[in-house]
Amino acid sequence: MKRSVEFLFDVGSPYSYLAYHALPAIARAAGAEIVWRPILLGAIIKTTGGHSPFEVPAKMRWVEQDLERCAAALAVPFRLNPHFPVNTLVAMRIATGLQAQRPADFPAWVEASFRAMWAEGRNLADPTELAAVIRAAGFDDQELLALASQQAVKDKLRSDSEAAIARGVFGAPTFFVGELMYWGNDRLDQVALALAPESAAG
Amino acid sequence: MKRSVEFLFDVGSPYSYLAYHALPAIARAAGAEIVWRPILLGAIIKTTGGHSPFEVPAKMRWVEQDLERCAAALAVPFRLNPHFPVNTLVAMRIATGLQAQRPADFPAWVEASFRAMWAEGRNLADPTELAAVIRAAGFDDQELLALASQQAVKDKLRSDSEAAIARGVFGAPTFFVGELMYWGNDRLDQVALALAPESAAG
Repeated sequence: MKRSVEFLFDVGSPYSYLAYHALPAIARAAGAEIVWRPILLGAIIKTTGGHSPFEVPAKMRWVEQDLERCAAALAVPFRLNPHFPVNTLVAMRIATGLQAQRPADFPAWVEASFRAMWAEGRNLADPTELAAVIRAAGFDDQELLALASQQAVKDKLRSDSEAAIARGVFGAPTFFVGELMYWGNDRLDQVALALAPESAAG
Repeated sequence: MKRSVEFLFDVGSPYSYLAYHALPAIARAAGAEIVWRPILLGAIIKTTGGHSPFEVPAKMRWVEQDLERCAAALAVPFRLNPHFPVNTLVAMRIATGLQAQRPADFPAWVEASFRAMWAEGRNLADPTELAAVIRAAGFDDQELLALASQQAVKDKLRSDSEAAIARGVFGAPTFFVGELMYWGNDRLDQVALALAPESAAG
């Protein structure tokens, strides 16, 4: 059985963006498959009683430096989104809808929305900007916005986020290798160990 | 000039305990000196508007697993202190007082109080247990409690914690290499890079 690592992410989360760039090489080296799991981080933080770093100014100042250092170490373009925190509800509904109904288009949207948030400083909560980002990614904005407004798509993002909470998720990125949970881009070394062939965890 | 890394810690912080065990080898490899800086984490979290992971049950459940994994990776004895979070005010005043007045005794107290908290599950906020931990470390409990009650010692721990906040500190462990700040046991790889001879940061 092929090993796999589940990647729970929200494109509004900067550490999810870093993990998005770091995880593929780790999975490839382990011969493992990435199982992509879009979730709505804002809803998860609210339900679990968590806090955004934004609430603690000193922490946010450090997070900004840390993100720049981590992105530089990965050689990934990064600038803190000036609109952060951004409501990614529609962007994540599009991801959920594409994954379920047009899976071949899912990777391009994940790439485009992460890049818009964390390399281009776009405001995905603004309908005009969101439509422009969709079009720039080569999609029809009316089509994807219609997809995002399907009740089944809305329900799936909600139930997937609730299912994540039921498994213990409180933040993003979160990884699962089997039932072992890892929170944070900075736990990818442990994910790599759990995926190693000699490990019993995968 | 010898490179140095400042280590801001509170013995009540489990990730400070891990860093306490991991940092010496990193500093030694870099030929750097560790500058030990006792601080009172509870006061810093309160002043900066932060939150203990304890406030978010799902996060605390994961932190407990994470601490066990990280301790196992370091081969360091660990169990979550059943009294956590523990008020370490007197323990940290002792650390501050010893460092200033009896520096030769400072390392033994740091070792004993970290071990009491994170290997032995002792409650350092309980006067009887604290006195027992002091005696087990080979010190006179009356002497060290008298040291902790000196106004100059109380003032120094407070002003050192306030100075840390003024430099941007909001949690522990925190490291400084020059003016570069790193928060968290999981940033020790970056501390090692900053201390490397080819780096301009130290």
